[in-house]
Amino acid sequence: MSKEDIGITVSKKEDFSEWYTQVVLKAKLADYAPVKGLIVLRPDGYSIWESLRNTFDKKFASNGIRNGFLPILIPESLLGKEQKHFAGFNPEVFWVTHSGDNKIGDRLALRPTSETLAYTMYSKWIQSWRDLPLKMNFWNSALRAEIKATKPFLRTSEFLWQEGHTVHSTQEEAEEEVMKILEIYKKTIEEELAIPVTTGKKSEKEKFVGAVYTTTMESIMPDGKALQMGTSHFLGQNFSKPFEVKFADKDNVEHYAWQTSWGVSWRLIGAMIMIHGDDQGLVLPPKIAPIQVVIVPIYKNDEDKDKVLPKVKEIRKILESKEIRVHVDDRNELSPGYKFNDWELKGVPVRVEIGPKDIEKQSVVIAKRYNREKSSLDFTEIEKISTILDKIQTNMLKTASEQAKANTIDISDYTEFKSKIEKGGFFNAPWCGKVECEEKIKEETGADIRLIPFGSENTNEKCMYCQEQSISIPIFARGY
Amino acid sequence: MSKEDIGITVSKKEDFSEWYTQVVLKAKLADYAPVKGLIVLRPDGYSIWESLRNTFDKKFASNGIRNGFLPILIPESLLGKEQKHFAGFNPEVFWVTHSGDNKIGDRLALRPTSETLAYTMYSKWIQSWRDLPLKMNFWNSALRAEIKATKPFLRTSEFLWQEGHTVHSTQEEAEEEVMKILEIYKKTIEEELAIPVTTGKKSEKEKFVGAVYTTTMESIMPDGKALQMGTSHFLGQNFSKPFEVKFADKDNVEHYAWQTSWGVSWRLIGAMIMIHGDDQGLVLPPKIAPIQVVIVPIYKNDEDKDKVLPKVKEIRKILESKEIRVHVDDRNELSPGYKFNDWELKGVPVRVEIGPKDIEKQSVVIAKRYNREKSSLDFTEIEKISTILDKIQTNMLKTASEQAKANTIDISDYTEFKSKIEKGGFFNAPWCGKVECEEKIKEETGADIRLIPFGSENTNEKCMYCQEQSISIPIFARGY
Repeated sequence: MSKEDIGITVSKKEDFSEWYTQVVLKAKLADYAPVKGLIVLRPDGYSIWESLRNTFDKKFASNGIRNGFLPILIPESLLGKEQKHFAGFNPEVFWVTHSGDNKIGDRLALRPTSETLAYTMYSKWIQSWRDLPLKMNFWNSALRAEIKATKPFLRTSEFLWQEGHTVHSTQEEAEEEVMKILEIYKKTIEEELAIPVTTGKKSEKEKFVGAVYTTTMESIMPDGKALQMGTSHFLGQNFSKPFEVKFADKDNVEHYAWQTSWGVSWRLIGAMIMIHGDDQGLVLPPKIAPIQVVIVPIYKNDEDKDKVLPKVKEIRKILESKEIRVHVDDRNELSPGYKFNDWELKGVPVRVEIGPKDIEKQSVVIAKRYNREKSSLDFTEIEKISTILDKIQTNMLKTASEQAKANTIDISDYTEFKSKIEKGGFFNAPWCGKVECEEKIKEETGADIRLIPFGSENTNEKCMYCQEQSISIPIFARGY
Repeated sequence: MSKEDIGITVSKKEDFSEWYTQVVLKAKLADYAPVKGLIVLRPDGYSIWESLRNTFDKKFASNGIRNGFLPILIPESLLGKEQKHFAGFNPEVFWVTHSGDNKIGDRLALRPTSETLAYTMYSKWIQSWRDLPLKMNFWNSALRAEIKATKPFLRTSEFLWQEGHTVHSTQEEAEEEVMKILEIYKKTIEEELAIPVTTGKKSEKEKFVGAVYTTTMESIMPDGKALQMGTSHFLGQNFSKPFEVKFADKDNVEHYAWQTSWGVSWRLIGAMIMIHGDDQGLVLPPKIAPIQVVIVPIYKNDEDKDKVLPKVKEIRKILESKEIRVHVDDRNELSPGYKFNDWELKGVPVRVEIGPKDIEKQSVVIAKRYNREKSSLDFTEIEKISTILDKIQTNMLKTASEQAKANTIDISDYTEFKSKIEKGGFFNAPWCGKVECEEKIKEETGADIRLIPFGSENTNEKCMYCQEQSISIPIFARGY
């Protein structure tokens, strides 16, 4: 093994950025593609994405949302139909200009997002109230050219995501859908990835280009920076008008429809790595771990081997019958110590060690990845590993929630804010609602309004910046 | 409802091409996107693709193949590394030349296939025999500019597919993998889509550019034309050499690895539509049908409604407990007759009709889509619908196999061949192995060698074209 295979060489605390990159690469989740800004997912990385996809799909389906496919190429003329939207994405669009040696007349954009294409189709498909609501979701990749240094899962020019697009006959129903989706997102991220999220609205300045308003989820990372975890937009009739998404109501009068769009991306995997990982490497929440339990048999000679291996087989069978994803590391040429490090690096939630002494004691050693605690478990109690996995999942969320809470500060004094923002964190600070103050704060501190938490509106305090009457208490933070 | 909603307006026999397009559009599987050559999948179309994906994923997984993600952009320099391969795809590549307003130095190709990109990564990931076999699969879309008229699922410039790429330490193991995959393909297509396929090798002229040889599956469509259903390639060391996919063997000597690649696309859905559809529209094999059973309650007044609906609920529950995908069509404003036609157009395998008279008789009417037969089923026997679905699946394959057999002809006389090829079909005809004969036949009849069936090699007959000693009996046909 070459040196760089051995493990993570920097600590999470000392060099967070380098630590993150090493975890991604050495745990074999992803790798850099030959083109700057692009990454490749290796099986363990993609498996986590598939697991999230399957969970979301179930929840979308039970909410009446069905999947479809949209092509990746969008003609420039179509993308330009909603002007603000176009202006927002234009600088980062990849343009196809040729097929073979032939020049293409109307340049083709690689999908930065599919509102314009989806709604062109919807306007054909929707004629009457009978066709509504129309609720579709698309699992695909979006492309937005990144000029800054590539950061796997966090800053890439192509990223995997889902984009949902729904159409409703009333404003009320559309706005309800926006919130239903945000709730599905929040629950899934907390339950599957063990990451707490705060939900609220984006400010006018930060909302999705083309939306009436954007709801968002934000999480705080260990370096004190905020990460946007997903957004759900109320589009009103901003797109239904230029794209003619109309329906005849029961009284046969034609109306423009009300729309929503929403998405989460593989950025969620990046957040999970940052939140849970440690100096030994990745730490995976059991629910999305490709391997939940790894069994490492320990023996030095054939006699021991013959004692240990049948028991390993037995334990494996019990765990599989409980639908636990289990792997037996029976590689011959490697020492148990090497294997322990290897699986810790890869973040497998539970390791089961079993050697000749354990056979004598009729028990195994259980090592939990997230807190690195070891304990022993009787052969008769192997099924309890199922409960252990559940507890790990719960505790990981609990720990992450405590961390997030400790990094969230109520503040009203701007000077204090300016000194504290250096260390990072979420700052609840009153704001007058004026974009000038928002911009000044950004300019002077690098922090922007991440979100205005639901229920924090209509306050009666003084804007942290201008001291005028506040209209809400947003969360200010520096962001990814 | 406008006229075009009412049903298929041409017969399958009289205008096969128009019939096909109408079925795709009216059964709402897919629609044309704004850019020529591109299509959009609607929920029912995508659901069939998801069903196939899930089946393949299970089979790939149990064969040790894991999924990953590759970006869509491949630099021109990389694509050009294997010269023949590049020359083969070059004319149909979409080129990205700009991101925003910036010109890109090394033009980027939209993935026509990912050999070059995957193997660049593999060469980094593979060091020793311990890293082999490396078996990965990628579900994505490929782009190859089509200049001919768009045909949904059959001829599109972007298509959904999976591409598998494996690396092995020995030639033997790689060749075995090629065949294992072909077998998975064949079984899945026959079992899930009820389409019989013939397997064999492509001729040198027709093989994948860059492969040592290509194995293929071909099916015969109702218009007598052949459709390639998927291919599995033995790449030998043709790519491992230029891309330096090397491994140190146990004795620490470095070797170039042996590789395979293979894929099936949404073209399989096109084949299914063509093979099974009829003048009423789509006919779906139960295994991949998004809805397997539709229940249509029949009533004219509230009194009947109150009798019928509770029973409908009950039946639905029984079917759902059998894991049957069931839908109740309780649309108020539509007549039962309209609903029958609607679900026939959409190809739902079984329709359950239930009205007040059926309640009296304690039975329901069952209408099977594939043969349009009606029968009655006692309330006590509702669970039998599960068996009925299985039988439908088996019978659909049987019927399709009989049709394929009837359209396959042994032939050795070229004059006879030339007259018969006009009507279409698969022709088993002896061939000397020379590309000149193959080209002449193509030129004069439009038919090419679709495949050389396994076991048809080493024959001792006379080439249909030149009368010289034959080396095999390929299947000649006109193709899609």
